[in-house]
Amino acid sequence: MHNIALIGAGRIGKIHAANLAASRRVRLARVVDPFGDAAAALAGEHGAQVSTLEDALADPSISGVLVASSTDTHLDYSLAAAEAGKAVFCEKPLDQDLARARAATRRFSEVDARLFLAFNRRFDPNFAALQSRLASGEVGAIETLHIISHDPAPPPVDYVKVSGGIFKDMVIHDFDMARWLLGEEISEVFASSSVLVDPAIGDAGDADTAKTLLRTTSGRLCMISSSRRSGYGYDQRIEAFGSKGMIRAQNQLESTVEIWGETGAAADRFQNFFLDRYAVAYAREIDHFADILDGNMTPLVGFEDGVAALALAEAAARSARTGERVLL
Amino acid sequence: MHNIALIGAGRIGKIHAANLAASRRVRLARVVDPFGDAAAALAGEHGAQVSTLEDALADPSISGVLVASSTDTHLDYSLAAAEAGKAVFCEKPLDQDLARARAATRRFSEVDARLFLAFNRRFDPNFAALQSRLASGEVGAIETLHIISHDPAPPPVDYVKVSGGIFKDMVIHDFDMARWLLGEEISEVFASSSVLVDPAIGDAGDADTAKTLLRTTSGRLCMISSSRRSGYGYDQRIEAFGSKGMIRAQNQLESTVEIWGETGAAADRFQNFFLDRYAVAYAREIDHFADILDGNMTPLVGFEDGVAALALAEAAARSARTGERVLL
Amino acid sequence: MHNIALIGAGRIGKIHAANLAASRRVRLARVVDPFGDAAAALAGEHGAQVSTLEDALADPSISGVLVASSTDTHLDYSLAAAEAGKAVFCEKPLDQDLARARAATRRFSEVDARLFLAFNRRFDPNFAALQSRLASGEVGAIETLHIISHDPAPPPVDYVKVSGGIFKDMVIHDFDMARWLLGEEISEVFASSSVLVDPAIGDAGDADTAKTLLRTTSGRLCMISSSRRSGYGYDQRIEAFGSKGMIRAQNQLESTVEIWGETGAAADRFQNFFLDRYAVAYAREIDHFADILDGNMTPLVGFEDGVAALALAEAAARSARTGERVLL
Amino acid sequence: MHNIALIGAGRIGKIHAANLAASRRVRLARVVDPFGDAAAALAGEHGAQVSTLEDALADPSISGVLVASSTDTHLDYSLAAAEAGKAVFCEKPLDQDLARARAATRRFSEVDARLFLAFNRRFDPNFAALQSRLASGEVGAIETLHIISHDPAPPPVDYVKVSGGIFKDMVIHDFDMARWLLGEEISEVFASSSVLVDPAIGDAGDADTAKTLLRTTSGRLCMISSSRRSGYGYDQRIEAFGSKGMIRAQNQLESTVEIWGETGAAADRFQNFFLDRYAVAYAREIDHFADILDGNMTPLVGFEDGVAALALAEAAARSARTGERVLL
Repeated sequence: MHNIALIGAGRIGKIHAANLAASRRVRLARVVDPFGDAAAALAGEHGAQVSTLEDALADPSISGVLVASSTDTHLDYSLAAAEAGKAVFCEKPLDQDLARARAATRRFSEVDARLFLAFNRRFDPNFAALQSRLASGEVGAIETLHIISHDPAPPPVDYVKVSGGIFKDMVIHDFDMARWLLGEEISEVFASSSVLVDPAIGDAGDADTAKTLLRTTSGRLCMISSSRRSGYGYDQRIEAFGSKGMIRAQNQLESTVEIWGETGAAADRFQNFFLDRYAVAYAREIDHFADILDGNMTPLVGFEDGVAALALAEAAARSARTGERVLL
Repeated sequence: MHNIALIGAGRIGKIHAANLAASRRVRLARVVDPFGDAAAALAGEHGAQVSTLEDALADPSISGVLVASSTDTHLDYSLAAAEAGKAVFCEKPLDQDLARARAATRRFSEVDARLFLAFNRRFDPNFAALQSRLASGEVGAIETLHIISHDPAPPPVDYVKVSGGIFKDMVIHDFDMARWLLGEEISEVFASSSVLVDPAIGDAGDADTAKTLLRTTSGRLCMISSSRRSGYGYDQRIEAFGSKGMIRAQNQLESTVEIWGETGAAADRFQNFFLDRYAVAYAREIDHFADILDGNMTPLVGFEDGVAALALAEAAARSARTGERVLL
Repeated sequence: MHNIALIGAGRIGKIHAANLAASRRVRLARVVDPFGDAAAALAGEHGAQVSTLEDALADPSISGVLVASSTDTHLDYSLAAAEAGKAVFCEKPLDQDLARARAATRRFSEVDARLFLAFNRRFDPNFAALQSRLASGEVGAIETLHIISHDPAPPPVDYVKVSGGIFKDMVIHDFDMARWLLGEEISEVFASSSVLVDPAIGDAGDADTAKTLLRTTSGRLCMISSSRRSGYGYDQRIEAFGSKGMIRAQNQLESTVEIWGETGAAADRFQNFFLDRYAVAYAREIDHFADILDGNMTPLVGFEDGVAALALAEAAARSARTGERVLL
Repeated sequence: MHNIALIGAGRIGKIHAANLAASRRVRLARVVDPFGDAAAALAGEHGAQVSTLEDALADPSISGVLVASSTDTHLDYSLAAAEAGKAVFCEKPLDQDLARARAATRRFSEVDARLFLAFNRRFDPNFAALQSRLASGEVGAIETLHIISHDPAPPPVDYVKVSGGIFKDMVIHDFDMARWLLGEEISEVFASSSVLVDPAIGDAGDADTAKTLLRTTSGRLCMISSSRRSGYGYDQRIEAFGSKGMIRAQNQLESTVEIWGETGAAADRFQNFFLDRYAVAYAREIDHFADILDGNMTPLVGFEDGVAALALAEAAARSARTGERVLL
């Protein structure tokens, strides 16, 4: 059992705490949060202790640090943990500022940081099965890719204002998926975005709808469709077109129940909430972190993946703003 | 082009007339019907002539006779046509009375009747594909079979009264499908029927809902589900379970359009009317009749198949009445 | 946290132990098993103690007893636990002998036994959703029902020999589902069974394939399809036909991944193992037991449901043997 | 019955000839083709006469002219027919040269041409149902659109060389669909194309794979995916995302047959050939032309729609060439 310190007792911190508690390979030992009440409640629930960051990093019994604090602290806390010799589980995104993230690269490298950047979708069983079967050549060599990622409903405008914008906050997941599945680096980005869902999002300087087109060095193409509101649930689909066919991952439904009535056949609703849709993925992230702590695996997603996704997000935001294709 | 005489200008007669007209292999030459106006209208529409049965049978330019008159005349007209040396396309069922049908066997045999008994489902492209793939062993040897045949809505009670009952009128199609797909003779029949849809059907001495269980000599099992009203369209499905897997034919939908909304994903309605559902099957029946007329094929469904299906219908009706299994 | 004593450390006992351990509402305190090593291993894994049945029942801190021992002990252990004032979670089936189960009814009643008979399918989210929507009238009043329950592969013949036969061992689940969904008592049973999968099962005096037809007092009909080997995975489906439409629960697939290739579109495999297929159901059973222990609910499935399902199983076995319908 | 002169006895001409022959509202009277043998064969098959264009246009009994000749003659023949007062059914595309097509606008307008430009997909029952339900607001106001159009296999390179390029030859269908479904004019086009299927297509100066992103004046977005080879059949799908949900049209399968085996559930192949896939659409085009001839309807797709689709195709080709967004 590896002892883990968790930084951040908010929504995503609670998810990770529960999965740490359910795992037999790791143990939630310390909870760090500037809001003492939140830290105390979460620590109490799982038999952990409230801690300062300093104490946690100084404790030699702590093997790993899970950074689930606010985005602007991800880089600093991850670096501090790595410098203290801890393995790091860092929530996405690495940072909202590409220059800042790039500037930190050398320091992470100097301490041989074992940093796992937690892009949860890579750990979803459906997407993982798709990636594995695609990589094994079941549909031949990949040529083009469609990623659809539509949220059920928009977040509060207050969140939008600090989110870094739709490309860094939301599409960044899809940039990581695209890099993972396309199998080569992306060389061109074009994006077009609109305010079609909520004018308040536009007033906040952001968009709520976007289509992004990526092109790799050899000419593979990827289209990403993004929307802050679907009206029909959480739409998370991928279609990969290869030389011999197509492989895709469909949405998860609430149940397998169908009703056949006068108007046709109706399947159940899509899973509507990302914590349901990716519940298994979050648990598998913890399992992967335990593999890293065991020394059996290096992180499947690392610092450089975080930087690369952020670079794509910045490029897409720029393209949407200027109307011009961005070369990387 | 083979000249055809059509007996019967009612609903099913009109269907066959249109398919005869659309075919390049046969020509609708004569229309026979006791209702002169109906005969004249249909003949006029397709450039055929109104005729008596006698004249049609005496005309040497007529190669085939299509019997689509009322059920109680099927046997007599088919026999007359066969005795006149014509190929016969006989609408199902052969007759409502098993003893009468059996009694006619010798006479049909004596004239070497070329009689095609038109069980339309064998000519449905979906069921035909299922049968072909099943017979080719794609799921191994067949073990059991489920046939679902639910009508969208019950027929008028006046029709029910002369229909011969649910087993002879409706389930007879499924008895033929079962014989076709099971690949060996049926030795036992058990049926249970109810009046759940319309009490008037019960008052008329018939049932509107039934489940029938068939067993073959080697122990293969078949379940047939029958209902006069589905509430959701025309439900025509088959599932065949083999030693290596299952093969099934699903329902036809009106279109491939789906709507994803708050309550889930909704496909389009099922095709609701048997003339739509089996439009292709009826056209393919005419094509098969042309093959017979060309001398290239013997009828895929013959007199003895009609007798066998009728025997199963009578056995099922008896079982439903007595509560006892009927051995054949 | 209610303390639970688990009787039985075999395959199903281990499943329940894991779910007890994962629950925050109950605690696995004692493990009872004649095989001391098995008990010690399971107790050790979950921080429980090895115990005799007597000690467990005498311990006032134990609130509930989970009976997961061999079938022939279910009745005795459940009764002993009930007499000791414990709530009882009894694995299905109640017993293999209908007369013996009936004879015990009075004694369970005298001690006001709080007995939950764990028919796991009622707790499957898909079937539970189907039942709930059916009961709420979404497809009108139920008229007929199809239950398909095909195992991926047959059990060892040694298991078959002590299983009580296909109807008591396997179809008993479906009898419970039928009673649950049909909404009224079953008055007639007809069954036909065959040996089509493995002759050794026939040599052991059992069948491996069966179709059972049930009829309720008002004429509702239910068909149950049973097979010990599907060739395509664990086939667990229900279709309920109502006056306004049909509601059904489909199979669970391993993932939502599809491949489109030359031969068509291929979905992923069906979940192949009952412990995967019903993993959620087993966890929800524990939750329901916690509700009973809290005093908030009476058991959703009780002693009398176990007796009723067993009565149907005996009737079906008799019908298959004699070829005659059995009236209840 | 309106008499029709058909210009062009090639592959698509034969399709239209068969549908003219099958219709009861129009009659194929004359066939015009520079290849006399082809004209004679087709005319003979349908009881029409071989004719020169001049004679056909001079014949007052001819009401309509169906232009199915080579693309470079569409404009001239259509104009000649319109000047002769005939209704015109013009195969797509109007022309390969936008400037030339625009230049002809005034002359078509001066003669009040009744020209129906036959974009067949608008007449496909699935896409027509999608458009109708979308327009009726079933998923709210449209926001974004995905159109997938992948051919089963690439055409011969000799065809590619004279095709006008992927955007004018193939994607032009999708530009028309986008205009039809988006409900407002397109103001920006960005396209990226690659040679991933066949290097010979690249050598011929064309691409075989493309993604095109369209933007309307109000910010609605549309992504079009194009490929000359799918490896899995003819992939023709549309997904329209509205404020209240999504509506889509799926592919047509060869049959409704599925096989469930060890590796999962396999549906039948997609329809593989455009003449099968759009057989009903072609027949409905003739019906629409008959409506125009009856004077009951104006053309649903006209000259200006052909110009607009061509303008989008030229813009997309330019964008793919330059890497720059094209404003319209």
